[in-house]
Amino acid sequence: MHVQLNPTGVLNLLSQLEVDLLQQSSTFERYKLFRNCVLAVLNVGSHTDSSYEIYKKFEDFDVKLVARERGIKIELTNPPESAFVDGDIISGIHEHIFSVIRDILFICQRHEEELVETKNITHMVFDMLRNADALEVNTDPNMVVCWGGHSINEMEYKYTKEVGYQLGLRGLNICTGCGPGAMKGPMKGATIGHAKQRITNNRYLGLTEPSIIAAEPPNPIVNELVILPDIEKRLEAFVRTAHAIIIFPGGAGTSEELLYLLGILLHPDNDKQVLPVILTGPASSSDYFNEIAKFIETTLGKEALSKFDIIIDDPEQVAKAIKNAMPNVREYRKSEGDAYYFNWTLKIEPPFQKPFEPTHENMASLDLHLDQPKEVLAANLRRAFSGIVAGNVKDNGVKAIKEHGPYTLSGDKSLMKDMDNLLRAFVSQGRMKLPGSTYIPCYKIES
Amino acid sequence: MHVQLNPTGVLNLLSQLEVDLLQQSSTFERYKLFRNCVLAVLNVGSHTDSSYEIYKKFEDFDVKLVARERGIKIELTNPPESAFVDGDIISGIHEHIFSVIRDILFICQRHEEELVETKNITHMVFDMLRNADALEVNTDPNMVVCWGGHSINEMEYKYTKEVGYQLGLRGLNICTGCGPGAMKGPMKGATIGHAKQRITNNRYLGLTEPSIIAAEPPNPIVNELVILPDIEKRLEAFVRTAHAIIIFPGGAGTSEELLYLLGILLHPDNDKQVLPVILTGPASSSDYFNEIAKFIETTLGKEALSKFDIIIDDPEQVAKAIKNAMPNVREYRKSEGDAYYFNWTLKIEPPFQKPFEPTHENMASLDLHLDQPKEVLAANLRRAFSGIVAGNVKDNGVKAIKEHGPYTLSGDKSLMKDMDNLLRAFVSQGRMKLPGSTYIPCYKIES
Amino acid sequence: MHVQLNPTGVLNLLSQLEVDLLQQSSTFERYKLFRNCVLAVLNVGSHTDSSYEIYKKFEDFDVKLVARERGIKIELTNPPESAFVDGDIISGIHEHIFSVIRDILFICQRHEEELVETKNITHMVFDMLRNADALEVNTDPNMVVCWGGHSINEMEYKYTKEVGYQLGLRGLNICTGCGPGAMKGPMKGATIGHAKQRITNNRYLGLTEPSIIAAEPPNPIVNELVILPDIEKRLEAFVRTAHAIIIFPGGAGTSEELLYLLGILLHPDNDKQVLPVILTGPASSSDYFNEIAKFIETTLGKEALSKFDIIIDDPEQVAKAIKNAMPNVREYRKSEGDAYYFNWTLKIEPPFQKPFEPTHENMASLDLHLDQPKEVLAANLRRAFSGIVAGNVKDNGVKAIKEHGPYTLSGDKSLMKDMDNLLRAFVSQGRMKLPGSTYIPCYKIES
Amino acid sequence: MHVQLNPTGVLNLLSQLEVDLLQQSSTFERYKLFRNCVLAVLNVGSHTDSSYEIYKKFEDFDVKLVARERGIKIELTNPPESAFVDGDIISGIHEHIFSVIRDILFICQRHEEELVETKNITHMVFDMLRNADALEVNTDPNMVVCWGGHSINEMEYKYTKEVGYQLGLRGLNICTGCGPGAMKGPMKGATIGHAKQRITNNRYLGLTEPSIIAAEPPNPIVNELVILPDIEKRLEAFVRTAHAIIIFPGGAGTSEELLYLLGILLHPDNDKQVLPVILTGPASSSDYFNEIAKFIETTLGKEALSKFDIIIDDPEQVAKAIKNAMPNVREYRKSEGDAYYFNWTLKIEPPFQKPFEPTHENMASLDLHLDQPKEVLAANLRRAFSGIVAGNVKDNGVKAIKEHGPYTLSGDKSLMKDMDNLLRAFVSQGRMKLPGSTYIPCYKIES
Repeated sequence: MHVQLNPTGVLNLLSQLEVDLLQQSSTFERYKLFRNCVLAVLNVGSHTDSSYEIYKKFEDFDVKLVARERGIKIELTNPPESAFVDGDIISGIHEHIFSVIRDILFICQRHEEELVETKNITHMVFDMLRNADALEVNTDPNMVVCWGGHSINEMEYKYTKEVGYQLGLRGLNICTGCGPGAMKGPMKGATIGHAKQRITNNRYLGLTEPSIIAAEPPNPIVNELVILPDIEKRLEAFVRTAHAIIIFPGGAGTSEELLYLLGILLHPDNDKQVLPVILTGPASSSDYFNEIAKFIETTLGKEALSKFDIIIDDPEQVAKAIKNAMPNVREYRKSEGDAYYFNWTLKIEPPFQKPFEPTHENMASLDLHLDQPKEVLAANLRRAFSGIVAGNVKDNGVKAIKEHGPYTLSGDKSLMKDMDNLLRAFVSQGRMKLPGSTYIPCYKIES
Repeated sequence: MHVQLNPTGVLNLLSQLEVDLLQQSSTFERYKLFRNCVLAVLNVGSHTDSSYEIYKKFEDFDVKLVARERGIKIELTNPPESAFVDGDIISGIHEHIFSVIRDILFICQRHEEELVETKNITHMVFDMLRNADALEVNTDPNMVVCWGGHSINEMEYKYTKEVGYQLGLRGLNICTGCGPGAMKGPMKGATIGHAKQRITNNRYLGLTEPSIIAAEPPNPIVNELVILPDIEKRLEAFVRTAHAIIIFPGGAGTSEELLYLLGILLHPDNDKQVLPVILTGPASSSDYFNEIAKFIETTLGKEALSKFDIIIDDPEQVAKAIKNAMPNVREYRKSEGDAYYFNWTLKIEPPFQKPFEPTHENMASLDLHLDQPKEVLAANLRRAFSGIVAGNVKDNGVKAIKEHGPYTLSGDKSLMKDMDNLLRAFVSQGRMKLPGSTYIPCYKIES
Repeated sequence: MHVQLNPTGVLNLLSQLEVDLLQQSSTFERYKLFRNCVLAVLNVGSHTDSSYEIYKKFEDFDVKLVARERGIKIELTNPPESAFVDGDIISGIHEHIFSVIRDILFICQRHEEELVETKNITHMVFDMLRNADALEVNTDPNMVVCWGGHSINEMEYKYTKEVGYQLGLRGLNICTGCGPGAMKGPMKGATIGHAKQRITNNRYLGLTEPSIIAAEPPNPIVNELVILPDIEKRLEAFVRTAHAIIIFPGGAGTSEELLYLLGILLHPDNDKQVLPVILTGPASSSDYFNEIAKFIETTLGKEALSKFDIIIDDPEQVAKAIKNAMPNVREYRKSEGDAYYFNWTLKIEPPFQKPFEPTHENMASLDLHLDQPKEVLAANLRRAFSGIVAGNVKDNGVKAIKEHGPYTLSGDKSLMKDMDNLLRAFVSQGRMKLPGSTYIPCYKIES
Repeated sequence: MHVQLNPTGVLNLLSQLEVDLLQQSSTFERYKLFRNCVLAVLNVGSHTDSSYEIYKKFEDFDVKLVARERGIKIELTNPPESAFVDGDIISGIHEHIFSVIRDILFICQRHEEELVETKNITHMVFDMLRNADALEVNTDPNMVVCWGGHSINEMEYKYTKEVGYQLGLRGLNICTGCGPGAMKGPMKGATIGHAKQRITNNRYLGLTEPSIIAAEPPNPIVNELVILPDIEKRLEAFVRTAHAIIIFPGGAGTSEELLYLLGILLHPDNDKQVLPVILTGPASSSDYFNEIAKFIETTLGKEALSKFDIIIDDPEQVAKAIKNAMPNVREYRKSEGDAYYFNWTLKIEPPFQKPFEPTHENMASLDLHLDQPKEVLAANLRRAFSGIVAGNVKDNGVKAIKEHGPYTLSGDKSLMKDMDNLLRAFVSQGRMKLPGSTYIPCYKIES
């Protein structure tokens, strides 16, 4: 099965030099990156979250760029059927493919050596968002980042939709990490809310990165998709774009995000930052949040608890709280002379910017002791959870686990115990992987 | 509680002469019409479908137009709270109020005597749709009228959403009679489908009329609202606007619509009309459709069955069938030199255009015998069901029943029995009224 | 030669009832009106200003509406070639034809009896402008009405362009009576000014009426054209739409306009009206304005002189003065609660609203004595000049003069003398008719 | 005098890294480039074409970027008054300043070493046009490049306006080198033509480069301005963007352009290129074109004459010829699979791409003999004229002449004589410099 896609958007204006960069004849690594990302966005609605399985299932999938009068055309071989309606590709997915091309081209034209310094890393995050037209000038703060699990239960899913609806009714936009569950619900809800409010410049911003995109493919409602080069730049894009953050129930990935966020907010330079953070879920998720809060308090201390609120079972209240905080966000940015569309003043230290590669060795050598500065501990805990996400759903991670067995994590006994409890709870609540498979832990905790 | 609405849209450009027409000091009847329609669109999300109760509940509601620099302002006193989010009116509802003003002004400036002839009635329907910007030139056929009950069960409701989603994915637009249930579901579903397809000129056309608007208030997703002066013109607007019609499970109102439609399609002049009609619902509604089909066959004959298809439990198939039929609709209109946006060539006889007032006397004297031409019988049956809708939910109807007891219907014994069975089924399935009240029939059938 | 025009704009949505109104088979008078107006807008660039000659020259021109799928098509037979570029009609002229259809349909659906009262006449002027989308809400005052002769010399023409350019640079819009000379220059100049300022919602409003349209065909830059039913409603449209008025050198028509304006501004109720009026021209026109001012002073008194300023040879100063006055216009409207887009509060008495038919009898019986109230005298003088315009360029007027000889005007000896001088000056300066013909006066003055 | 400009367009989204590049504290050369280009676009309407004089006159002019909440602001010190209307900067000029910033930033972020190969140079030209949004996809060929002198007489200027008007009436767009005379006239004319045709996406593309921008400042009608880094890339941008080229009378610059064009078109690979070239002017310019044609024939041979047409005194015919050729241009591009918006297939050899620096030494050593391949001779002649332009109006050139006296050109006796005659004619016709100064030749010809 061959499908040719009409050139539109970015595709219309590629020069031959650029097209060459994405050809099979080009570096194999780059071509594979390109192919896999395209496959991922086509494979939306899939019922597995194992990148490994997806790539295996669609081994005969291929994508290439073919020259033609007035620009370039994309040719797909054996694409997943779910991307098509009666033979025509869904427009949202069509756009996502262009976003992939745009961002892969951007990434492969950067020079590695330009990315050593903090200010260069931040500039690259900014530059990619700008290049994707994802920075909106002249708009008051209204972007709500929603984090949460890709594998949540029906009641939680409905709750995320209802929160999204209430946000949409209040003219707020949604940013998530793409993917199903808590990343899709708020956008669907907001779509209805925006429709009722006749908001047509509604934004559903999806931020992802190549290693996670297959496990969490962007749903087609996402109308601005940016593929950052790695998880750390994706996280930075989240927090610099956010005017508020809502955290729904989730598993290891959500924990990674929360720890990253708290590690940054605990930095003294960020003391005056105005960034509302709300953890919320239906009544049935109340225990879940208690456990999370306990873990945070034990590891990062009481101060960390002051950085967020927990609201149980009240979508309207969540939306109101966010909406009411927006003028404060605005005032803060104004007082600092900062842009509304990008939080330049947020201090992010190198440990949170430097890519962490979750090899068995790196995971084993993580320093997980309580007697270190809170933000350093936060950075290390973030890395630990990041590695578990990789072992659960990312291609390289899953392969590594297959080959070498589970990661080993070690550290303070009490900390290890708390972590173990938390992770066990995630497993038993089905938050680690999409339902339908028995979850085999990709880690073991030594004490 | 007083709320003032900013002038936008049509309100901006009223002359004093026009404003005067809607003042309390103007004819009381006209003012009441205006006030009640405004109340109805504000009262969306209400849990009763009795116009009578709604008007009673909001006796202290008032609306007036106040002059102010650069146009007119609307002042609401004690409006229903559900129309507001954190004190601001929902934009969709704001727009609906303007639609009310536009259409009431239009109606009250027409001269009665201009509406005697068939071609003048049709012209008025056309003129009101045009005045409401609800006729889209240069677009291929894509308007799907969805009929069905305002009171349907959860499974049926989900089904209507899924059908709407599949229609939306195929770029089709939705027209309904406003209100909850089968009139809201398809629009919500289509909203998600349209978002995925990046369709921004999506149309959710709501056609209503003053006596039903309170019982079936337009949900705010409706982005084109037209208030026709009476049920007959509303029905004509439906069938001349439709490129296809989907009928979901419903009660008396849905039966009225189906009978009206079949009465027209059975006219010899309409023999070649291309207008796909599909009755559809979830597997659990299968019996319901069998009963309807049987009733149609008994009363209007086998030929009537050829005018529609029944598809059970397959939303994608429904949407595909409609989509596939669109080129035929297009070809037919082209071959007749007819517009795509308005079916001028559809023959509608006076019995289907002439307003029927469901007084006890008129209801009692309906000729419900089998030995009359099929289209005449269809017209009379249509009137019978129309009266039952009035007795169920319309203000005047409910009041009349309160005062004089149920309507009496009489006719052929076998026909009466079939009708009785059908209506009893509607009652037992909870289709006559929104749940939460015990339904007391507004009719009795004499045999 | 046959040309068919695609249906766009208003043409797309005509019902058969409406099309019938414009058919040849309809009333002959109405059809002739329609045909002549269409011919006039096609005949732009013509070198004669005699309606009579134009109609004679294009006797074999015909226009008809033909039905076709998706709306109506216009068919032109033997249209003037100047309306076409390489066989395609100029878009601006295409639009003007639709404006003609829109306005003729509007006019012929009004009932005569509705137009007796002042407030009904004003409502009709408003209604026609609204129907033509020529009322712009939410815009600050910026509409500058420019009056002046259709027959002016090269230096004066350049001057009107320069004034238009300076107005355009300041974001002001232009309204004229269509036609060449002082009605075209300001629009051409403003087009360049607007282009430099990147103003894309620039408005070039042309107000005309059926009896003058052939002599002063709208140039295609006019992007909003409204054909009012008669000269009095056109004048009312001018003054209620204007935020400022500039008067360039001109002949009898310009005098009519100035007298109409002063007659209204002298009304005590209009005392506080803020409506800047500037008479301006190049240095060489300085004498012209002195004569005008003298005539005004003699006839309407010193007070009348206070209603306008004269600025000689300084386009930038003219534009600055207008621009600087706009906030005052805004404040005045605001303080009166009046709209910015339509001056409702301007008092216009019946003598200025009632159509004046310039028959020989009516002209002869005009009361032109000085011992009457200033505003009555102004109304009568306005009628006298109006008649002279008719006798110069309008079809009926020219025919009447051909048949019965010149109009006779009589009144106070001194007034008659002043008038005679003024008119002689117009003749000798070539302001009465386009160059190329010897002007034979259509009036004689008795003393 | 200090003026601050609001951030809009590109300015809104600069990162600190980028702002730093344009600071005074940055490289002096880059800052000077930035400052001089900003000054040039502000200085439109100036009456001198000597960059040197302009820079001297505005020595106290300064520009800097200042940070402020929500982006960056521009601060101008002592800007030329002609850029302002009543204290507000003209929007077109405001935009031009942003174009300067955009392009200077682009240029200073390129690496020199990337620009050695032909395909990289072409990619840069493409990339700058794309970055400036100056490549329009999905549009049929319609871009007419107009070349001609900045110093032409009134009759010629009117003629260029008339040609522009006729092009505009036919929906064609205009691209020129910015500046007055033949570069401004066609745009002004086209503005009126486009207005009459209701064309709102009209394009007035200006291509310039830093060393000429002060002598030929972009007039504010230019709505897409691109500042290429040097004259050779500017010329390449012209010919790859053009769908047709019109050459009006001009001086040394126009000769440079014509020779560049012919040198390329004479390349065998460009044999089948479809690129209509028309030399045109009023009747009074007829001799001028004869001389040009004679010079071309003598130097480049008869074949070169076949590459263009000469049309005298017929603007409508010029526009018709261009319009009629557009389908051929389209067919050619289609048949080659080439884009409409950029002529990738046009072969341009390194001699035409490599920057030529007109030092006295380089000028003196130009090989101006007839016995070399035609395209090499064309390249050298092009350089000779390029140097003369520099000596006439460019800052560095004027300074060099001031210091070292006129350039020396030498070569074949007959060629030198022809060249001398041509240049003398340019001088005597006032084409070398704007009127108001006595022209002192910047060259001398040795034989």
